[in-house]
Amino acid sequence: MSNKPTLHTSLSPALLHLYDLSNSVVVIIDVFRATSTIASALFNGAKCVIPVDSVPKAIEISKKIGGIAAGERDGIIAEGLEHGNSPLEYGRDFIENKTLVLTTTNGTRLLQMALDNNAEKIIAGSFPNLSAVCDFLLAEKKNVVLGCAGWKDRFNLEDTLFAGAIINRVSAAFTVHCDSSLMAEMMYAKNKNKMIEFAPRLTHYHRLVERFGLIEDITFCLTNDVANVLPVYSDGKLIAL
Amino acid sequence: MSNKPTLHTSLSPALLHLYDLSNSVVVIIDVFRATSTIASALFNGAKCVIPVDSVPKAIEISKKIGGIAAGERDGIIAEGLEHGNSPLEYGRDFIENKTLVLTTTNGTRLLQMALDNNAEKIIAGSFPNLSAVCDFLLAEKKNVVLGCAGWKDRFNLEDTLFAGAIINRVSAAFTVHCDSSLMAEMMYAKNKNKMIEFAPRLTHYHRLVERFGLIEDITFCLTNDVANVLPVYSDGKLIAL
Repeated sequence: MSNKPTLHTSLSPALLHLYDLSNSVVVIIDVFRATSTIASALFNGAKCVIPVDSVPKAIEISKKIGGIAAGERDGIIAEGLEHGNSPLEYGRDFIENKTLVLTTTNGTRLLQMALDNNAEKIIAGSFPNLSAVCDFLLAEKKNVVLGCAGWKDRFNLEDTLFAGAIINRVSAAFTVHCDSSLMAEMMYAKNKNKMIEFAPRLTHYHRLVERFGLIEDITFCLTNDVANVLPVYSDGKLIAL
Repeated sequence: MSNKPTLHTSLSPALLHLYDLSNSVVVIIDVFRATSTIASALFNGAKCVIPVDSVPKAIEISKKIGGIAAGERDGIIAEGLEHGNSPLEYGRDFIENKTLVLTTTNGTRLLQMALDNNAEKIIAGSFPNLSAVCDFLLAEKKNVVLGCAGWKDRFNLEDTLFAGAIINRVSAAFTVHCDSSLMAEMMYAKNKNKMIEFAPRLTHYHRLVERFGLIEDITFCLTNDVANVLPVYSDGKLIAL
């Protein structure tokens, strides 16, 4: 057997408990759009992002610390909030040196589950920070669990494609004995050069584009390294490493 | 919106509750090897297959009715049983006019979950009876949930590939708005002409072949229509329609 660390992919939050997170780096993946937004905000100089699980908590914490409360439910800005879950909302002019307090349908919930399952280290990944994530995983040399946020526990392809993008780059350094990872890498290899053209086949694309017209968001969220920072979770906050 | 019935794919028993089974035909898929074995036994003239969830129950019921108790745990014949979960064990000479009482790691558990979730109709599918399954789904014109048994709740590719094989044949008759189904169909389309060559990449292949030498089982389980009956669940039994 190889002495390389292992890499597994969890295709849904409902499957996360099947993997041993306690000795692993867990990559939280919510391509549309939580982890892309987190990368965007930190890349543009946000002090940190505080992920919270409810709108009232987002409002309460942001008031206390003078931060920006933001979040979505079912793809639109959550009731009671002024800012949503679009990575394009968080340009440098707006977010630099501020704290973003963010609640989302899937991504923040998955992060909480990783904490509850004693993840050793938690980072946030998306196409906009693909290289930063891969560089970190290769440097750490620890077991990895790629955690796809999905949609309300259902499998989604965009998170899986991003897991595949990571595997495509780092697999030589890991023992990958996991059908989810094999599938993710194959799906990515097949579609990597036509991601934007492929997007209209995703269920979430229809949710975001047909209902809310968020085509620029989709394009940003599927573009490599346009916000290439590494969000690391520590003590209730995601900060850029 | 289309008036076609819907088709969804559940990639793991742990995701089955996300789908409405009460108005659906649920296809139980456990390619290696429960549903392939069920097809094989019924094709070779078994009166019926009684799926049960434990070895003691398999022994008790088979004694009572003069049936064959069989099953596996973790890929090998379960302790206390003489017959396992290999489709090749159930040739016509042995199984004709007998009742098979079968317990397996994943497939029989998934079937019980489908019952618990009030599935309207339950059938068993595998490559050996692909055409019978597709013909039935096309004739029924009801909503369909393809239920992959996976491995101890983990995703596996062979069940997903078979879901993809079904979708590949029947999708024109259904509304398929489901990333799992899209992925399954794409994975199948990519690999359909080299299934046997692809098999060594599957984690379950290693479990069955490297540990137990079951290469003939694998080949049978990946061959279309070699046991082309339709196992339908009714009143505690799977019978050939």
